[in-house]
Amino acid sequence: MTGSINNEKEVVMNTRITTRKWDDFHAHLRQEELLRIAVPHTAAYFERALVMPNIKPPVCDMLVAKRYRNEILDVAHRSGYPDFEPLMTIKIVDGMNSGTVSLAHAFGMVAGKAYPVGATTNSEEGVSDFRHPRLRRVFEEMEAGGMVLSVHGEMPLAPSLEREARFLCELEWLATQFPKLKIVMEHITTRKAVEAVCSLPSTVAATITVHHLFLTLDDVIGGKLNPHHFCKPIAKTLDDRAAVQEAAISGNPKFFFGSDSAPHRRENKECGAGEAGIFTSPVAPSLLAEFFESRESLHRLESFVSRFGAEFYGLPLNKGTITLIKEPWEVPRIYSSFIVPFKAGETLQWKVVERS
Amino acid sequence: MTGSINNEKEVVMNTRITTRKWDDFHAHLRQEELLRIAVPHTAAYFERALVMPNIKPPVCDMLVAKRYRNEILDVAHRSGYPDFEPLMTIKIVDGMNSGTVSLAHAFGMVAGKAYPVGATTNSEEGVSDFRHPRLRRVFEEMEAGGMVLSVHGEMPLAPSLEREARFLCELEWLATQFPKLKIVMEHITTRKAVEAVCSLPSTVAATITVHHLFLTLDDVIGGKLNPHHFCKPIAKTLDDRAAVQEAAISGNPKFFFGSDSAPHRRENKECGAGEAGIFTSPVAPSLLAEFFESRESLHRLESFVSRFGAEFYGLPLNKGTITLIKEPWEVPRIYSSFIVPFKAGETLQWKVVERS
Repeated sequence: MTGSINNEKEVVMNTRITTRKWDDFHAHLRQEELLRIAVPHTAAYFERALVMPNIKPPVCDMLVAKRYRNEILDVAHRSGYPDFEPLMTIKIVDGMNSGTVSLAHAFGMVAGKAYPVGATTNSEEGVSDFRHPRLRRVFEEMEAGGMVLSVHGEMPLAPSLEREARFLCELEWLATQFPKLKIVMEHITTRKAVEAVCSLPSTVAATITVHHLFLTLDDVIGGKLNPHHFCKPIAKTLDDRAAVQEAAISGNPKFFFGSDSAPHRRENKECGAGEAGIFTSPVAPSLLAEFFESRESLHRLESFVSRFGAEFYGLPLNKGTITLIKEPWEVPRIYSSFIVPFKAGETLQWKVVERS
Repeated sequence: MTGSINNEKEVVMNTRITTRKWDDFHAHLRQEELLRIAVPHTAAYFERALVMPNIKPPVCDMLVAKRYRNEILDVAHRSGYPDFEPLMTIKIVDGMNSGTVSLAHAFGMVAGKAYPVGATTNSEEGVSDFRHPRLRRVFEEMEAGGMVLSVHGEMPLAPSLEREARFLCELEWLATQFPKLKIVMEHITTRKAVEAVCSLPSTVAATITVHHLFLTLDDVIGGKLNPHHFCKPIAKTLDDRAAVQEAAISGNPKFFFGSDSAPHRRENKECGAGEAGIFTSPVAPSLLAEFFESRESLHRLESFVSRFGAEFYGLPLNKGTITLIKEPWEVPRIYSSFIVPFKAGETLQWKVVERS
């Protein structure tokens, strides 16, 4: 009754699955009170998480990064997850010095994250133009050092449903100009993005969130307005979701898991100007298992969550295992009285029972 | 410095405009506390309003209609608008008897409103299938009596952005099957709907709201999530809006004003399941004047708001005039402590100063 961590082809029985420990290659761990909630939820299921730098002030230098990392580790330790490893990122902004990036990499930061200005939460500072000559040195340094460029792939001035597709020519330009630069197009949501990532060289990969495996635009605006399904990039059509789902179960190493889990206060979601972002970390393992099972692809789950990302980033694979069993549990309606998780109040079928 | 009510071609000066009194051919006056707020806001600017029947219980027979009309008139009188005339509608539902419709028409109800089941607020009951044989008698009775069929033109099971376009074959079917039936496709939002209405016989018309002249989908989901811009049908693309704008100023009598103004409690908009609908009646005159002026079409405003609709419905034109001047005013952020209007807190340029 146990799945295999070694052989994808072995039949995985449908009541218990054990895989190598997981990575989340896109996590928002926030600050202060939200940090104290986000970290244990991520660390409970993920051995490592790529920590987004769009805090306030943003992670733009080593000092901030070091302090932020210590805060994360401190919470992880105090929450009983001493082995949790935050993979730190630095925020790429317009006037950045390439030396800053080199230094960051030398000190163990694995990626530079570039947000087009205005694309999402806390992206007032970012990249106005990926092709600006001043950024060339930054990307060249990253390319030379093997540091990953992680991009929020949306053009903010385009209509929201077209923002991701409009970014693809920037992605292609980056891949062509910097042929050895490893680039991750984050949280892809469209068929066009899937196709672009497939067609580009192996230096280009993409993360897929759990909520984009489940949602379409209609889950936001199709019935009543649901702010808890509102995120950037916004979920798209059924056809787009089908393409993202196919990519996730394809076994193509270009596609791996990044939750984009982002805790927001309920009052900042349910208001006249609702923040974008979905808190998925408490439900991500259950939903991933449910989704992969529904597509008869449980044997592909391990690669998606614990192999492809690590290999792309050039990191060792996690040691140890995580085990899920099929046993219904109800998602809390709210965490810490003010964070509504994805699938709040719903009954999910899979449950993490063991990490060793 | 005065616009003309008689001659569309006369040059209208841009600081003052006087037209024949206005009609709103699509208004939600709600019930109880909301009714007491909605009625004076509509009656302040509109001589007549087509009153939507989707209250609870819905207006499906004469008894309910009569009681509802009396409540509306009572509030209008007490608010100082004794001349306000609610044009009543009856809700068309699946199992309806054609005799009910005939009786309603005989008692002065001008239209039957058909909502596809599940299309919008309070549409749990409605029409499952416009082509069902049982409804044929209802539509034939309306056709024979000259009663207007007002339709919420969306197919609820389609993706939200396609619901209106998918309804157009139903509209065409209705227009073909009942060639003398007057049909209004309410609150159109797409280029396809504009084109369909243009191409169909003169028995088919459409209303246009003020918010659909201003909004696109990005005003709902493009930045932060804005529940106060959330409505059904949802605002669409820039190209769709351009088509609706062109229709409004075209001078084509098939297109006339219906606000779809709908007061909702703030807590029912800013929540985890936000209601669809925008409260526009307090700002509709200002925004219509602003929009028509911006398109150098102020001379077309009068037909849009006080002629084409009345003529389509076979009603006499209003007597008396309404005058707007160009004078900035600030829209209240909230009405009665719990209703956020369209353009809340913004400064508008036109103001109604006189009705006589």
